[in-house]
Amino acid sequence: MNRGCFITFEGIDGSGKSTQINLLEKKLRDSGYDVLLSREPGGTDIGEKIRELILDPANDEMDQLTEAYLYASSRAQLVKQVIIPALDDGKVVICDRFVDSSIAYQGYGRQMGEIIEQLNRFAVDGCLPDITFLLRIEPKGTKSRMAGRELDRIELASENFHYRTFKGYDEIATKNPGRITVIDGRNSVDEIHEAIIAKLAEFDIFKGLQV
Amino acid sequence: MNRGCFITFEGIDGSGKSTQINLLEKKLRDSGYDVLLSREPGGTDIGEKIRELILDPANDEMDQLTEAYLYASSRAQLVKQVIIPALDDGKVVICDRFVDSSIAYQGYGRQMGEIIEQLNRFAVDGCLPDITFLLRIEPKGTKSRMAGRELDRIELASENFHYRTFKGYDEIATKNPGRITVIDGRNSVDEIHEAIIAKLAEFDIFKGLQV
Repeated sequence: MNRGCFITFEGIDGSGKSTQINLLEKKLRDSGYDVLLSREPGGTDIGEKIRELILDPANDEMDQLTEAYLYASSRAQLVKQVIIPALDDGKVVICDRFVDSSIAYQGYGRQMGEIIEQLNRFAVDGCLPDITFLLRIEPKGTKSRMAGRELDRIELASENFHYRTFKGYDEIATKNPGRITVIDGRNSVDEIHEAIIAKLAEFDIFKGLQV
Repeated sequence: MNRGCFITFEGIDGSGKSTQINLLEKKLRDSGYDVLLSREPGGTDIGEKIRELILDPANDEMDQLTEAYLYASSRAQLVKQVIIPALDDGKVVICDRFVDSSIAYQGYGRQMGEIIEQLNRFAVDGCLPDITFLLRIEPKGTKSRMAGRELDRIELASENFHYRTFKGYDEIATKNPGRITVIDGRNSVDEIHEAIIAKLAEFDIFKGLQV
Protein backbone atom coordinates (compact mmCIF):
# COMPACT_ATOMS: atom_id res chain seq x y z
CA MET A 1 0.00 0.00 0.00
CA ASN A 2 1.29 3.46 -0.91
CA ARG A 3 1.20 6.30 1.57
CA GLY A 4 -1.68 7.83 -0.38
CA CYS A 5 -3.85 5.62 -2.57
CA PHE A 6 -3.50 4.86 -6.27
CA ILE A 7 -6.84 4.05 -7.93
CA THR A 8 -7.18 3.23 -11.63
CA PHE A 9 -10.21 2.73 -13.87
CA GLU A 10 -10.12 0.32 -16.77
CA GLY A 11 -12.51 -0.94 -19.43
CA ILE A 12 -13.19 -0.66 -23.15
CA ASP A 13 -14.31 2.65 -24.64
CA GLY A 14 -17.91 3.39 -23.71
CA SER A 15 -17.75 1.41 -20.46
CA GLY A 16 -18.59 4.48 -18.38
CA LYS A 17 -15.19 5.21 -16.83
CA SER A 18 -15.40 9.00 -17.12
CA THR A 19 -18.80 9.18 -15.46
CA GLN A 20 -17.65 7.06 -12.53
CA ILE A 21 -14.34 8.89 -12.18
CA ASN A 22 -16.17 12.22 -11.96
CA LEU A 23 -18.62 10.89 -9.36
CA LEU A 24 -15.81 9.37 -7.29
CA GLU A 25 -13.67 12.50 -7.49
CA LYS A 26 -16.55 14.65 -6.21
CA LYS A 27 -17.37 12.16 -3.45
CA LEU A 28 -13.77 12.01 -2.23
CA ARG A 29 -13.24 15.77 -2.38
CA ASP A 30 -16.51 16.32 -0.49
CA SER A 31 -15.24 13.86 2.11
CA GLY A 32 -12.04 15.88 2.58
CA TYR A 33 -9.58 13.84 0.55
CA ASP A 34 -6.80 15.48 -1.45
CA VAL A 35 -7.48 14.05 -4.91
CA LEU A 36 -5.32 14.16 -8.04
CA LEU A 37 -6.96 13.18 -11.35
CA SER A 38 -4.88 11.96 -14.24
CA ARG A 39 -5.16 10.05 -17.48
CA GLU A 40 -3.19 7.94 -19.92
CA PRO A 41 -1.66 8.47 -22.31
CA GLY A 42 -0.80 11.99 -21.18
CA GLY A 43 -1.11 13.46 -17.71
CA THR A 44 2.11 15.52 -17.99
CA ASP A 45 3.20 18.20 -20.48
CA ILE A 46 5.58 15.75 -22.14
CA GLY A 47 3.02 12.94 -21.94
CA GLU A 48 0.40 15.09 -23.66
CA LYS A 49 2.82 15.73 -26.54
CA ILE A 50 3.43 11.97 -26.77
CA ARG A 51 -0.35 11.46 -26.67
CA GLU A 52 -0.71 13.80 -29.68
CA LEU A 53 1.84 11.74 -31.59
CA ILE A 54 0.03 8.49 -30.79
CA LEU A 55 -3.45 9.76 -31.66
CA ASP A 56 -2.61 11.89 -34.75
CA PRO A 57 -4.29 10.18 -37.74
CA ALA A 58 -1.44 11.51 -39.93
CA ASN A 59 0.86 8.96 -38.26
CA ASP A 60 -0.87 6.01 -39.91
CA GLU A 61 2.46 4.33 -40.69
CA MET A 62 3.19 3.92 -36.99
CA ASP A 63 4.31 0.41 -36.16
CA GLN A 64 2.47 -1.17 -33.22
CA LEU A 65 5.77 -1.64 -31.40
CA THR A 66 6.59 2.07 -31.82
CA GLU A 67 3.15 2.78 -30.35
CA ALA A 68 3.83 0.43 -27.42
CA TYR A 69 7.08 2.26 -26.63
CA LEU A 70 5.34 5.64 -26.87
CA TYR A 71 2.65 4.54 -24.38
CA ALA A 72 5.40 3.31 -22.08
CA SER A 73 7.36 6.59 -22.39
CA SER A 74 4.27 8.62 -21.45
CA ARG A 75 3.71 6.23 -18.53
CA ALA A 76 7.30 6.49 -17.30
CA GLN A 77 7.01 10.28 -17.22
CA LEU A 78 3.63 10.16 -15.42
CA VAL A 79 4.88 7.73 -12.77
CA LYS A 80 8.04 9.72 -11.99
CA GLN A 81 6.70 13.24 -12.32
CA VAL A 82 3.14 12.91 -10.99
CA ILE A 83 2.04 9.64 -9.43
CA ILE A 84 4.96 8.85 -7.08
CA PRO A 85 5.26 12.44 -5.75
CA ALA A 86 1.47 12.64 -5.18
CA LEU A 87 1.34 9.30 -3.37
CA ASP A 88 4.37 10.27 -1.25
CA ASP A 89 2.38 13.38 -0.40
CA GLY A 90 -0.53 11.25 0.85
CA LYS A 91 -2.87 12.09 -2.02
CA VAL A 92 -5.51 9.91 -3.63
CA VAL A 93 -4.53 9.50 -7.26
CA ILE A 94 -7.31 8.50 -9.66
CA CYS A 95 -6.04 7.57 -13.11
CA ASP A 96 -8.18 6.98 -16.19
CA ARG A 97 -6.30 3.95 -17.62
CA PHE A 98 -2.86 2.68 -16.69
CA VAL A 99 -0.67 -0.28 -17.66
CA ASP A 100 -3.64 -2.69 -17.77
CA SER A 101 -4.88 -0.74 -20.81
CA SER A 102 -1.64 -1.44 -22.68
CA ILE A 103 -1.84 -5.12 -21.78
CA ALA A 104 -5.52 -5.37 -22.78
CA TYR A 105 -5.41 -3.31 -25.98
CA GLN A 106 -1.94 -4.13 -27.27
CA GLY A 107 -1.10 -7.43 -25.56
CA TYR A 108 -4.52 -9.01 -26.21
CA GLY A 109 -6.30 -6.72 -28.72
CA ARG A 110 -3.34 -6.39 -31.08
CA GLN A 111 -2.12 -9.85 -30.07
CA MET A 112 1.37 -8.63 -29.16
CA GLY A 113 1.42 -10.94 -26.12
CA GLU A 114 3.75 -10.74 -23.16
CA ILE A 115 6.11 -8.25 -24.82
CA ILE A 116 3.81 -5.52 -23.52
CA GLU A 117 4.23 -6.47 -19.86
CA GLN A 118 7.99 -6.89 -20.23
CA LEU A 119 8.38 -3.62 -22.10
CA ASN A 120 6.39 -1.72 -19.45
CA ARG A 121 8.19 -3.17 -16.45
CA PHE A 122 10.67 -0.28 -16.25
CA ALA A 123 8.00 2.40 -16.79
CA VAL A 124 5.77 1.07 -13.99
CA ASP A 125 8.80 0.52 -11.75
CA GLY A 126 6.77 -1.29 -9.07
CA CYS A 127 4.24 1.53 -8.84
CA LEU A 128 1.13 -0.59 -9.44
CA PRO A 129 -2.35 0.66 -8.47
CA ASP A 130 -3.61 -0.20 -4.99
CA ILE A 131 -7.11 -0.66 -6.42
CA THR A 132 -8.29 -1.04 -10.02
CA PHE A 133 -11.94 -0.92 -11.06
CA LEU A 134 -12.68 -2.78 -14.28
CA LEU A 135 -16.01 -1.65 -15.69
CA ARG A 136 -17.00 -4.74 -17.63
CA ILE A 137 -19.15 -4.20 -20.67
CA GLU A 138 -19.28 -6.32 -23.82
CA PRO A 139 -18.21 -4.53 -27.00
CA LYS A 140 -21.57 -5.43 -28.57
CA GLY A 141 -22.81 -2.47 -26.55
CA THR A 142 -20.85 -0.23 -28.92
CA LYS A 143 -21.87 -2.34 -31.92
CA SER A 144 -25.53 -1.49 -31.29
CA ARG A 145 -24.77 2.15 -32.06
CA MET A 146 -24.07 1.10 -35.64
CA ALA A 147 -27.33 -0.90 -35.88
CA GLY A 148 -29.43 -0.70 -39.02
CA ARG A 149 -26.61 -1.02 -41.56
CA GLU A 150 -24.03 -3.55 -42.67
CA LEU A 151 -20.60 -3.31 -41.09
CA ASP A 152 -17.67 -2.97 -43.50
CA ARG A 153 -14.44 -4.97 -43.34
CA ILE A 154 -12.63 -2.47 -41.17
CA GLU A 155 -15.46 -2.14 -38.70
CA LEU A 156 -15.63 -5.92 -38.43
CA ALA A 157 -11.87 -6.15 -37.90
CA SER A 158 -12.14 -3.43 -35.33
CA GLU A 159 -14.99 -5.36 -33.71
CA ASN A 160 -12.69 -8.41 -33.38
CA PHE A 161 -9.98 -6.20 -31.92
CA HIS A 162 -12.39 -4.79 -29.35
CA TYR A 163 -13.67 -8.24 -28.47
CA ARG A 164 -10.12 -9.55 -27.92
CA THR A 165 -9.44 -6.50 -25.74
CA PHE A 166 -12.61 -7.18 -23.74
CA LYS A 167 -11.64 -10.83 -23.20
CA GLY A 168 -8.10 -9.69 -22.38
CA TYR A 169 -9.41 -7.52 -19.56
CA ASP A 170 -11.19 -10.58 -18.13
CA GLU A 171 -7.93 -12.52 -18.17
CA ILE A 172 -6.01 -9.68 -16.52
CA ALA A 173 -8.70 -9.52 -13.79
CA THR A 174 -8.45 -13.28 -13.24
CA LYS A 175 -4.67 -12.98 -12.84
CA ASN A 176 -4.93 -10.05 -10.36
CA PRO A 177 -7.93 -10.86 -8.12
CA GLY A 178 -6.53 -8.92 -5.16
CA ARG A 179 -6.01 -5.69 -7.05
CA ILE A 180 -8.77 -5.66 -9.66
CA THR A 181 -12.46 -5.36 -8.79
CA VAL A 182 -14.73 -6.25 -11.71
CA ILE A 183 -18.00 -4.32 -11.86
CA ASP A 184 -20.84 -5.10 -14.24
CA GLY A 185 -21.00 -2.06 -16.53
CA ARG A 186 -24.63 -2.80 -17.42
CA ASN A 187 -25.76 -1.72 -13.97
CA SER A 188 -27.05 1.80 -13.40
CA VAL A 189 -24.65 4.67 -12.81
CA ASP A 190 -25.75 4.85 -9.15
CA GLU A 191 -25.38 1.12 -8.58
CA ILE A 192 -21.86 1.18 -9.99
CA HIS A 193 -20.90 4.20 -7.90
CA GLU A 194 -22.24 2.46 -4.77
CA ALA A 195 -20.23 -0.69 -5.56
CA ILE A 196 -17.08 1.42 -5.94
CA ILE A 197 -17.61 3.21 -2.62
CA ALA A 198 -18.38 -0.09 -0.86
CA LYS A 199 -15.14 -1.57 -2.16
CA LEU A 200 -13.06 1.46 -1.19
CA ALA A 201 -14.51 1.40 2.34
CA GLU A 202 -12.66 -1.90 2.85
CA PHE A 203 -9.37 0.02 2.82
CA ASP A 204 -8.10 1.76 5.97
CA ILE A 205 -7.65 5.09 4.21
CA PHE A 206 -11.34 5.10 3.18
CA LYS A 207 -12.78 3.57 6.36
CA GLY A 208 -16.30 4.81 7.04
CA LEU A 209 -16.77 6.18 3.51
CA GLN A 210 -20.43 5.99 2.54
CA VAL A 211 -22.55 6.93 -0.47
CA MET B 1 24.64 -11.61 -42.29
CA ASN B 2 21.69 -9.82 -43.84
CA ARG B 3 20.96 -10.04 -47.55
CA GLY B 4 22.21 -6.48 -47.93
CA CYS B 5 24.63 -5.05 -45.38
CA PHE B 6 23.87 -3.03 -42.26
CA ILE B 7 26.73 -0.66 -41.30
CA THR B 8 26.60 1.67 -38.30
CA PHE B 9 28.89 4.46 -37.10
CA GLU B 10 29.34 5.17 -33.42
CA GLY B 11 31.35 7.53 -31.27
CA ILE B 12 30.97 10.61 -29.10
CA ASP B 13 29.97 13.93 -30.64
CA GLY B 14 32.85 15.41 -32.59
CA SER B 15 34.43 12.04 -33.37
CA GLY B 16 34.11 12.59 -37.11
CA LYS B 17 31.23 10.24 -37.92
CA SER B 18 29.51 12.52 -40.43
CA THR B 19 32.68 13.12 -42.44
CA GLN B 20 33.39 9.40 -42.69
CA ILE B 21 29.78 8.51 -43.48
CA ASN B 22 29.77 10.99 -46.38
CA LEU B 23 33.05 9.65 -47.73
CA LEU B 24 31.90 6.05 -47.46
CA GLU B 25 28.52 6.79 -49.04
CA LYS B 26 30.21 8.42 -52.06
CA LYS B 27 32.73 5.57 -52.36
CA LEU B 28 30.01 2.89 -52.28
CA ARG B 29 27.71 4.72 -54.71
CA ASP B 30 30.61 5.27 -57.11
CA SER B 31 31.32 1.54 -56.86
CA GLY B 32 27.75 0.73 -57.88
CA TYR B 33 26.19 -0.12 -54.52
CA ASP B 34 22.60 0.78 -53.69
CA VAL B 35 23.10 2.79 -50.50
CA LEU B 36 20.55 3.98 -47.96
CA LEU B 37 21.65 6.58 -45.41
CA SER B 38 19.82 6.94 -42.13
CA ARG B 39 20.27 8.37 -38.67
CA GLU B 40 19.09 8.02 -35.11
CA PRO B 41 16.96 9.22 -33.54
CA GLY B 42 14.81 9.87 -36.58
CA GLY B 43 15.13 8.37 -40.03
CA THR B 44 11.35 8.09 -40.54
CA ASP B 45 8.57 10.70 -40.50
CA ILE B 46 7.37 9.43 -37.13
CA GLY B 47 10.93 9.05 -35.87
CA GLU B 48 11.74 12.66 -36.79
CA LYS B 49 8.74 13.83 -34.74
CA ILE B 50 10.00 11.74 -31.82
CA ARG B 51 13.48 13.24 -32.37
CA GLU B 52 11.97 16.74 -32.05
CA LEU B 53 10.37 15.76 -28.74
CA ILE B 54 13.67 14.38 -27.41
CA LEU B 55 15.79 17.33 -28.49
CA ASP B 56 13.37 20.20 -27.72
CA PRO B 57 14.95 22.21 -24.87
CA ALA B 58 11.41 23.05 -23.67
CA ASN B 59 11.06 19.44 -22.51
CA ASP B 60 13.55 19.89 -19.70
CA GLU B 61 11.39 17.94 -17.27
CA MET B 62 11.83 14.78 -19.31
CA ASP B 63 12.76 11.81 -17.15
CA GLN B 64 15.73 9.82 -18.44
CA LEU B 65 13.57 6.69 -18.61
CA THR B 66 10.99 8.54 -20.73
CA GLU B 67 13.87 9.54 -23.00
CA ALA B 68 15.10 5.94 -23.19
CA TYR B 69 11.63 4.78 -24.29
CA LEU B 70 11.43 7.57 -26.88
CA TYR B 71 14.78 6.53 -28.41
CA ALA B 72 13.55 2.95 -28.49
CA SER B 73 10.26 3.94 -30.14
CA SER B 74 12.09 5.85 -32.89
CA ARG B 75 14.38 2.82 -33.33
CA ALA B 76 11.48 0.35 -33.54
CA GLN B 77 9.92 2.43 -36.32
CA LEU B 78 13.22 2.73 -38.20
CA VAL B 79 13.94 -1.01 -38.02
CA LYS B 80 10.47 -2.04 -39.23
CA GLN B 81 9.83 0.70 -41.78
CA VAL B 82 13.29 1.31 -43.24
CA ILE B 83 16.17 -0.98 -42.25
CA ILE B 84 14.60 -4.43 -42.63
CA PRO B 85 12.92 -3.65 -46.00
CA ALA B 86 16.15 -2.10 -47.35
CA LEU B 87 18.27 -5.08 -46.26
CA ASP B 88 15.72 -7.50 -47.70
CA ASP B 89 16.07 -5.51 -50.89
CA GLY B 90 19.86 -6.10 -50.92
CA LYS B 91 20.79 -2.50 -50.07
CA VAL B 92 23.73 -1.24 -48.03
CA VAL B 93 22.28 0.62 -45.05
CA ILE B 94 24.58 3.12 -43.35
CA CYS B 95 23.18 4.42 -40.08
CA ASP B 96 24.59 7.32 -38.07
CA ARG B 97 24.16 5.84 -34.56
CA PHE B 98 22.07 2.84 -33.52
CA VAL B 99 21.43 0.90 -30.32
CA ASP B 100 25.08 1.16 -29.20
CA SER B 101 24.51 4.90 -28.79
CA SER B 102 21.69 4.26 -26.31
CA ILE B 103 23.84 1.80 -24.39
CA ALA B 104 26.84 4.17 -24.35
CA TYR B 105 25.02 7.43 -23.60
CA GLN B 106 22.20 6.21 -21.39
CA GLY B 107 23.46 2.88 -20.03
CA TYR B 108 26.98 4.16 -19.26
CA GLY B 109 26.82 7.98 -19.55
CA ARG B 110 23.62 8.38 -17.54
CA GLN B 111 24.48 5.25 -15.53
CA MET B 112 21.14 3.57 -16.21
CA GLY B 113 22.90 0.22 -16.65
CA GLU B 114 21.47 -2.88 -18.26
CA ILE B 115 17.92 -1.55 -18.37
CA ILE B 116 18.84 0.08 -21.68
CA GLU B 117 19.76 -3.16 -23.39
CA GLN B 118 16.70 -4.96 -22.02
CA LEU B 119 14.38 -2.11 -22.94
CA ASN B 120 15.73 -2.02 -26.52
CA ARG B 121 15.57 -5.76 -27.14
CA PHE B 122 12.12 -5.58 -28.76
CA ALA B 123 12.98 -2.50 -30.86
CA VAL B 124 16.12 -4.07 -32.32
CA ASP B 125 14.34 -7.39 -32.80
CA GLY B 126 17.49 -9.26 -33.79
CA CYS B 127 18.37 -6.68 -36.48
CA LEU B 128 21.89 -5.88 -35.28
CA PRO B 129 24.46 -4.23 -37.57
CA ASP B 130 26.71 -6.50 -39.60
CA ILE B 131 29.57 -4.04 -39.08
CA THR B 132 29.96 -1.16 -36.64
CA PHE B 133 32.74 1.40 -36.83
CA LEU B 134 33.54 3.05 -33.51
CA LEU B 135 35.50 6.26 -34.09
CA ARG B 136 37.39 6.46 -30.83
CA ILE B 137 38.28 9.92 -29.61
CA GLU B 138 38.68 11.10 -26.02
CA PRO B 139 36.20 13.73 -24.86
CA LYS B 140 39.07 15.98 -23.82
CA GLY B 141 39.12 16.84 -27.50
CA THR B 142 35.86 18.73 -26.95
CA LYS B 143 37.09 20.16 -23.65
CA SER B 144 39.92 21.95 -25.43
CA ARG B 145 37.35 24.05 -27.27
CA MET B 146 36.44 25.60 -23.94
CA ALA B 147 40.07 26.29 -23.03
CA GLY B 148 41.03 29.61 -21.51
CA ARG B 149 38.28 29.83 -18.93
CA GLU B 150 37.03 28.01 -15.83
CA LEU B 151 34.37 25.35 -16.37
CA ASP B 152 31.17 25.74 -14.32
CA ARG B 153 29.46 22.95 -12.39
CA ILE B 154 27.21 21.91 -15.26
CA GLU B 155 30.03 21.83 -17.80
CA LEU B 156 32.07 19.70 -15.42
CA ALA B 157 29.17 17.34 -14.83
CA SER B 158 28.63 17.16 -18.55
CA GLU B 159 32.33 16.42 -18.99
CA ASN B 160 31.98 13.44 -16.60
CA PHE B 161 28.94 12.27 -18.54
CA HIS B 162 30.89 12.39 -21.81
CA TYR B 163 33.82 10.60 -20.27
CA ARG B 164 31.58 7.80 -18.95
CA THR B 165 30.03 7.54 -22.42
CA PHE B 166 33.49 7.33 -23.99
CA LYS B 167 34.55 4.56 -21.58
CA GLY B 168 31.20 2.86 -22.17
CA TYR B 169 31.90 2.67 -25.89
CA ASP B 170 35.20 0.96 -25.10
CA GLU B 171 33.36 -1.64 -23.00
CA ILE B 172 30.75 -2.23 -25.69
CA ALA B 173 33.54 -2.75 -28.23
CA THR B 174 35.29 -5.22 -25.92
CA LYS B 175 32.02 -7.18 -25.58
CA ASN B 176 31.41 -7.26 -29.35
CA PRO B 177 34.82 -7.80 -30.98
CA GLY B 178 33.35 -9.53 -34.04
CA ARG B 179 30.93 -6.77 -34.91
CA ILE B 180 32.68 -3.59 -33.77
CA THR B 181 35.83 -2.25 -35.38
CA VAL B 182 37.54 0.43 -33.29
CA ILE B 183 39.33 3.13 -35.25
CA ASP B 184 41.60 5.77 -33.72
CA GLY B 185 39.76 9.04 -34.34
CA ARG B 186 42.98 11.06 -34.02
CA ASN B 187 44.18 9.74 -37.36
CA SER B 188 43.69 11.81 -40.49
CA VAL B 189 40.40 11.74 -42.39
CA ASP B 190 42.05 9.82 -45.24
CA GLU B 191 43.68 7.29 -42.94
CA ILE B 192 40.36 6.60 -41.23
CA HIS B 193 38.57 6.26 -44.55
CA GLU B 194 41.23 3.80 -45.75
CA ALA B 195 40.87 1.72 -42.56
CA ILE B 196 37.10 1.57 -43.08
CA ILE B 197 37.43 0.44 -46.70
CA ALA B 198 40.06 -2.15 -45.76
CA LYS B 199 37.75 -3.58 -43.11
CA LEU B 200 34.75 -3.68 -45.45
CA ALA B 201 36.79 -5.49 -48.11
CA GLU B 202 36.96 -8.46 -45.74
CA PHE B 203 33.22 -9.04 -46.35
CA ASP B 204 32.01 -10.95 -49.41
CA ILE B 205 29.63 -8.20 -50.44
CA PHE B 206 32.51 -5.68 -50.57
CA LYS B 207 35.20 -8.01 -51.97
CA GLY B 208 37.71 -6.11 -54.08
CA LEU B 209 36.67 -2.70 -52.74
CA GLN B 210 39.65 -0.36 -52.77
CA VAL B 211 40.31 3.24 -51.87
